[in-house]
Amino acid sequence: MKNILSALVVAVSLSAPLYAQQDSAMLSKIYHESFYNGQAYDNLRYLTKEIGHRIAGSPKAEEAVLWSKSLMEKLSFDKVYLQDVDVRHWDRGEAERAVVVGTNEKLNVLALGGSVATPAEGIEAEVLEVELLSDLRKHGEEVYGKIVFVNKPWEESLVETDVAYGLNSGQRSRGPVEVAKLGGIAYLFRSLSSSAIDDYPHTGGTRYVEGIDSIPALAISAVGGNRLSDILKENPKTRLFLKNTSSWKGIVHSHNVIAEWRGTEKPDEIITIGGHIDSWDVGEGAHDNGTGTMGTLDAIRTLMQLGYRPRHTIRLVFYMNEENGVNGSLKYGEIAKEKNEKIIAAIESDLGGFAPRGFDIKASAEHVAWIQQQWKPLFEEKFWVSRFLKGSPGVDSGVWGRHFPNTVMFNFRSDPHRYFDLHHTAKDVFEAVDRRELQSGVAAIASLLYLVDQQIDKLQ
Amino acid sequence: MKNILSALVVAVSLSAPLYAQQDSAMLSKIYHESFYNGQAYDNLRYLTKEIGHRIAGSPKAEEAVLWSKSLMEKLSFDKVYLQDVDVRHWDRGEAERAVVVGTNEKLNVLALGGSVATPAEGIEAEVLEVELLSDLRKHGEEVYGKIVFVNKPWEESLVETDVAYGLNSGQRSRGPVEVAKLGGIAYLFRSLSSSAIDDYPHTGGTRYVEGIDSIPALAISAVGGNRLSDILKENPKTRLFLKNTSSWKGIVHSHNVIAEWRGTEKPDEIITIGGHIDSWDVGEGAHDNGTGTMGTLDAIRTLMQLGYRPRHTIRLVFYMNEENGVNGSLKYGEIAKEKNEKIIAAIESDLGGFAPRGFDIKASAEHVAWIQQQWKPLFEEKFWVSRFLKGSPGVDSGVWGRHFPNTVMFNFRSDPHRYFDLHHTAKDVFEAVDRRELQSGVAAIASLLYLVDQQIDKLQ
Repeated sequence: MKNILSALVVAVSLSAPLYAQQDSAMLSKIYHESFYNGQAYDNLRYLTKEIGHRIAGSPKAEEAVLWSKSLMEKLSFDKVYLQDVDVRHWDRGEAERAVVVGTNEKLNVLALGGSVATPAEGIEAEVLEVELLSDLRKHGEEVYGKIVFVNKPWEESLVETDVAYGLNSGQRSRGPVEVAKLGGIAYLFRSLSSSAIDDYPHTGGTRYVEGIDSIPALAISAVGGNRLSDILKENPKTRLFLKNTSSWKGIVHSHNVIAEWRGTEKPDEIITIGGHIDSWDVGEGAHDNGTGTMGTLDAIRTLMQLGYRPRHTIRLVFYMNEENGVNGSLKYGEIAKEKNEKIIAAIESDLGGFAPRGFDIKASAEHVAWIQQQWKPLFEEKFWVSRFLKGSPGVDSGVWGRHFPNTVMFNFRSDPHRYFDLHHTAKDVFEAVDRRELQSGVAAIASLLYLVDQQIDKLQ
Repeated sequence: MKNILSALVVAVSLSAPLYAQQDSAMLSKIYHESFYNGQAYDNLRYLTKEIGHRIAGSPKAEEAVLWSKSLMEKLSFDKVYLQDVDVRHWDRGEAERAVVVGTNEKLNVLALGGSVATPAEGIEAEVLEVELLSDLRKHGEEVYGKIVFVNKPWEESLVETDVAYGLNSGQRSRGPVEVAKLGGIAYLFRSLSSSAIDDYPHTGGTRYVEGIDSIPALAISAVGGNRLSDILKENPKTRLFLKNTSSWKGIVHSHNVIAEWRGTEKPDEIITIGGHIDSWDVGEGAHDNGTGTMGTLDAIRTLMQLGYRPRHTIRLVFYMNEENGVNGSLKYGEIAKEKNEKIIAAIESDLGGFAPRGFDIKASAEHVAWIQQQWKPLFEEKFWVSRFLKGSPGVDSGVWGRHFPNTVMFNFRSDPHRYFDLHHTAKDVFEAVDRRELQSGVAAIASLLYLVDQQIDKLQ
């Protein structure tokens, strides 16, 4: 008896380091496979160069859906299928124009996603510049008949560029409604760019409210915004000409792309992983979100290649329409809720494919602390991945997650410095992605997925 | 008495968090100044675009010295001066050539730094491919009269690219001597590139030993190396033509560039900070090491701009000739030793200007643990700088540091993924540097410099 007890004590006291050693060895295999044989970068090349940008409802979006499905079918998933999603299709129309009236000076603009068109002949009006929408009230009747230009500069001093983005992004979505309420005839919004010397306009979603006039809404580049501000200081009566022809084209049938790898021990418990497959209709949707889709797919391929058999069912989801409606994640959540599924964890990747830094975690403080203690040491020194902090899940996980408040969620974080230089612009192209950085991120995601599958039960 | 004691207890118990709050506020100011008003990026543009590459002993190197001195003189240093350094000047001569004999196929090569020339008519010989120099012995007399090609692929799976570099770099420096000993007539070395699909050759220093023939030594691109290997598999008798005209041009008088900011409390105690100002003679020496010199200078400017007064003397050193002789750091060390200076800490930046990750620290395990505990939390969450690990100082600090074994040394680490794609190549140009990443690194270095100046005494 004593011997058995001793043996048990030894076994228990050794188990933690032994597991850690096994995990550490597995992570090294994952990194090796990803760097040497990873396919995310080559798949990304196809997605960005052969398909290109893919706004929800467009033929290119459907091409991306079918091609993604065929990619998944090449791997040893147990099931690959499309989930029907209806999306509203917005079309940019012809190239937008912004010209300082009485000059030939053009300013770089892009319609915000969802914007209505100007009248066919364009709009010509004086411009009221404010820093914040909340300043509008003090201008009162001055707003009437004007183009309102919200020119809040990006808070450049933050390394946390997502925080800087959050400081201004509400002005983009609420702008057209707030301006229209006061009789403004168009909305011009300083682009959410992390660089003040950026002459590329950044698009992104905005919204209207029933019962309030829908007015045209455009983004102006940071350089264009600075220039316009200078012109207005010289002559506050300066008139601006704006023209865009964008419009909503109605409902289009589209799809989420889903693949399942059945769990060997707990097949009814699901780990969701993925990101959105749609993009804005400029650039190539490389970092937003080609890297997130091709990266999560390749993370699973990596585990498959290593002969791994998951304990829980791993479900890969490429969501449709994150950018201007989140219809894909709404639909995913509805169906999962209806079926009363048990989704125990989620991993999302939608913050770029730069050098991997870690994961924001939506979980209790205790669970986050446990993850920091147990998993962070496996990544930190050897693989330079060290950020395991309490934070928000991705947009799609956040949306369907409303039905699943207890699901532990992880949001992949790549280095934040450059993301918002490229985000929603013509610059978000394949060439802005580095293979080593991308495959390093794939390895980090695959490693996390492995650890979640192996150990998430300890958090339940 | 009791009240006084209570007040003391309160004061003592509050002091740590109060200091931490002050430090935290100072770091935020530093980051703000660096992102909004930082000059490293603009100075780097001048160094790379107006001056360009600057190998030790070249007119461009001296132009960089004088221009750097003028930059330092614009700031409020107490002293700016040049320190005489004699360097051996190596000149690449005309563009190198490598051609597969009997074909028109050219392979991309660059002479390794310090290489002697081939005969004027070039060299034509069979090629002996080995993976490692240590394999040479088993080939014995086969080596005689051959071009020896060391084709050890880069270990791609390591995120720690500096470790991968270290695995192969000894083969570069020892190659010519080992090959010449066995009668080989030229040395061809697979470039130290982190990408197997890189067709740019990477130069770098090699060396000869007196009494052993000096044979030409060239780097071949990774793609070229793979190609040559394939050709040799087809026909092991393939002959290769090599030609280079590089040569040592004798001794040139050059300089370290030094500036001193006098300490208010302990002016005789010195914190050295800096990096090397020379570069290889390809590309523009942007990440190696324009970012390190312009970055450390701008870190000091940042503190000056904030009205900081250092406790210890801060000495900025731009070392000459790190790349092919380390004469600058040798000279700096000799003089500091002669003067019996008290150098309490050193910071070096010579590992790129990508997103800042942290600092390798040469100090006792206890001191490293103290730094991790005290300083890491100031950086980690807000500024995404989290790596404070025991490690080697930079090359220059390491060389002069032999005279100063107790100096605590910090080696700035930027993200390692892409550095060895660019290192010592034509691709190491200004465009490969991102302003936000660079200025974020400047802020990290300035923050560390501030903390070292404020608190290093606690480690003594």
